[in-house]
Amino acid sequence: MENVNTINEERLFRMLSKSSETGAIPQNGLRRLALSDKDQEMRNIYKDWCKEAGLTLRVDDLGNMYARREGKQDLLPVVLGSHLDTQPEGGRFDGVLGVLLALEVVQTLNDNGIETERPLEIVNFTNEEGARFEPPMLGSGAIAGVFDQEYVYSRKDAEGYSFLEELERIGYKGKEENRLSDFHSFLELHIEQGPILEDENIQIGVVEGVQGISWLEVTLTGEADHAGPTPMHLRKDALMAAAEIMNQLEKEIATTDVTVTVGKISVSPNSVNCVPGEAHFTVDIRSTNDDLRKEALKETKNTIRRVSEDRDVGEEMKELWETEKIDFDRSITEVIENSAIELGYSSKRMLSGAGHDAKYVHNLGPTAMIFVPSVNGKSHVPSELTLDKDIVSGANTLYQTVLTLSNE
Amino acid sequence: MENVNTINEERLFRMLSKSSETGAIPQNGLRRLALSDKDQEMRNIYKDWCKEAGLTLRVDDLGNMYARREGKQDLLPVVLGSHLDTQPEGGRFDGVLGVLLALEVVQTLNDNGIETERPLEIVNFTNEEGARFEPPMLGSGAIAGVFDQEYVYSRKDAEGYSFLEELERIGYKGKEENRLSDFHSFLELHIEQGPILEDENIQIGVVEGVQGISWLEVTLTGEADHAGPTPMHLRKDALMAAAEIMNQLEKEIATTDVTVTVGKISVSPNSVNCVPGEAHFTVDIRSTNDDLRKEALKETKNTIRRVSEDRDVGEEMKELWETEKIDFDRSITEVIENSAIELGYSSKRMLSGAGHDAKYVHNLGPTAMIFVPSVNGKSHVPSELTLDKDIVSGANTLYQTVLTLSNE
Repeated sequence: MENVNTINEERLFRMLSKSSETGAIPQNGLRRLALSDKDQEMRNIYKDWCKEAGLTLRVDDLGNMYARREGKQDLLPVVLGSHLDTQPEGGRFDGVLGVLLALEVVQTLNDNGIETERPLEIVNFTNEEGARFEPPMLGSGAIAGVFDQEYVYSRKDAEGYSFLEELERIGYKGKEENRLSDFHSFLELHIEQGPILEDENIQIGVVEGVQGISWLEVTLTGEADHAGPTPMHLRKDALMAAAEIMNQLEKEIATTDVTVTVGKISVSPNSVNCVPGEAHFTVDIRSTNDDLRKEALKETKNTIRRVSEDRDVGEEMKELWETEKIDFDRSITEVIENSAIELGYSSKRMLSGAGHDAKYVHNLGPTAMIFVPSVNGKSHVPSELTLDKDIVSGANTLYQTVLTLSNE
Repeated sequence: MENVNTINEERLFRMLSKSSETGAIPQNGLRRLALSDKDQEMRNIYKDWCKEAGLTLRVDDLGNMYARREGKQDLLPVVLGSHLDTQPEGGRFDGVLGVLLALEVVQTLNDNGIETERPLEIVNFTNEEGARFEPPMLGSGAIAGVFDQEYVYSRKDAEGYSFLEELERIGYKGKEENRLSDFHSFLELHIEQGPILEDENIQIGVVEGVQGISWLEVTLTGEADHAGPTPMHLRKDALMAAAEIMNQLEKEIATTDVTVTVGKISVSPNSVNCVPGEAHFTVDIRSTNDDLRKEALKETKNTIRRVSEDRDVGEEMKELWETEKIDFDRSITEVIENSAIELGYSSKRMLSGAGHDAKYVHNLGPTAMIFVPSVNGKSHVPSELTLDKDIVSGANTLYQTVLTLSNE
């Protein structure tokens, strides 16, 4: 097999290093909020790199950047990409790898004088993180029809600046007609942001879809009392009720197939010597199997009702959000898996627990993702890390996958 | 038995009603923060009432007000009192009853032309609540030697005004030599602030002491991870560890003799889709038996250590505060109990779960307290309520007790 293992590591790490400097914060972190000065600086650097690689750049009305390399034939393109924005105290790899490894793939094709049958496009999506403008994935969501332009433009950051103002200010407002349209396949390489690949010592995650997610918001209302004079049997302690519920969720509802997470909690009056009269918490339920997730949600509600009734505590539940499991394109995941096998990399079919631009792009056409390992599963923190060797394996897998898809 | 049931209800409720207007907030609440304009207004009204009752007023360097009625002999006085300040959104009875019922007792003595052998003094202590100037019970604590004058004067409210500035501003800075010194006995009538008397349908609580209290601050350190990609068995969830601990504290350490309260909790990062990496909470342990309380504290620490170890989560514990059980004076509690019996009131010997001025005054001489029932055990809220009939029973019990003590 030719063209194996051929990406240029020195060039790749030079690009990554430049990105890691642009918005650097202490302890190897990155702060490159969407449409900020640092985002503008990185976009300009990236634009120059794309031009140097002979790519044609266009920008759509949301600031999504597309860098195109023509193919031998006038066919639908293979599209690669992710995002260059970061969390406020984020890491160097989340999103960045998906854009810069795609650019390295194209440069390797150039080096090797390879013309693909299909055109290639690399996308940098605007505001994937949602850290500056909520909600996340505004750029990819808009082109997928999830958000309309007016909604995206009107999003405001914490200081009151709107998406539109900031998009115009940094000079990246393009035309609606430049949006991503039909494509042959979409590929997003991303860090796993979880511990599975590292834990099982696997190099490449072949991402078959995204887990289904349910969010529940719970309020328990007991009675606030002085801790001192109130004996245990006369209490209606909202926090003790929440603790019993959390224990049961962990022991009886979470399984190897269903995760249950209580991520937020607060109590009132929140005073050392007061029995909590109110407890608020959230429950995040995820599974690769929608039936199991829905069953777990039902059981979670039953548990909350039962414990509240036993303790004579009021309960109020609100379903905040639900998203069904997404299945990525099987033919693409097969190509990814075969590429890893050909390259001698260990791989594992898995589902993404988190949302990504690919989740929305999936609405538009055949889509799949490649995961590379995250050290300690950490992400959205300065210590976020993917080892150099794993980045190289990911780049080569992406290259091999693109070679196959673009000649289909 | 003469002089039974002789307090003047109409006058008593007129005084209480005036107090309830001074700093009134919606839903029958009171906001009369220490050394505020409303506190000044109430002090002035109270001062006039004391003068009308023929009492001699003196004020000490901390703003504590003493209203004295001479006795037939030059003996140590019987001292009664509590506080007229309230919580920011407090009720009408906490503290207020102890001062105004004492004044009603003296007026009833006047009405009946009774001269006692011993002098009587009524105290209004400054800043019992600690709601404006922390810590609580600054006035009684200072005369008991717990806080020195400089410390009390330097306490600042949330807006930066010092205790001394505000004391001078409202015109209630008196002389150090006016502080309460030797006394025969100190009596504080107070609302129970707990549900026991109401629950057992008892009119008078004969308070034999104050529970011992231990406060523990706990930090658990697990690992913050994305809820999505992190399977249950790879998590180090600080909140789930806290929930297991809370459950065990409730089930295995709290008893009818030991209360265990987790009043404050917070987690980090506190995000719906993040496994909590840190959990902070407090544990308040109280008992009327110091050995049981200390044993429970030890067991609480062991539970925290065991659960943390099982879950591979770090733990840090800090003992924030400890106060031993206080025993009030037995001869005074006997007089209180006998007074209730003579008056035909049901009574119960009990311990206070909360701190009161009497707790510090106890350092200076023989002290005890009388409790009257709190509807639903509520206090420090606008809905705080003690029924009129229970106020009358309390006032008569106080009157009867004073008659006995002041002629000893």
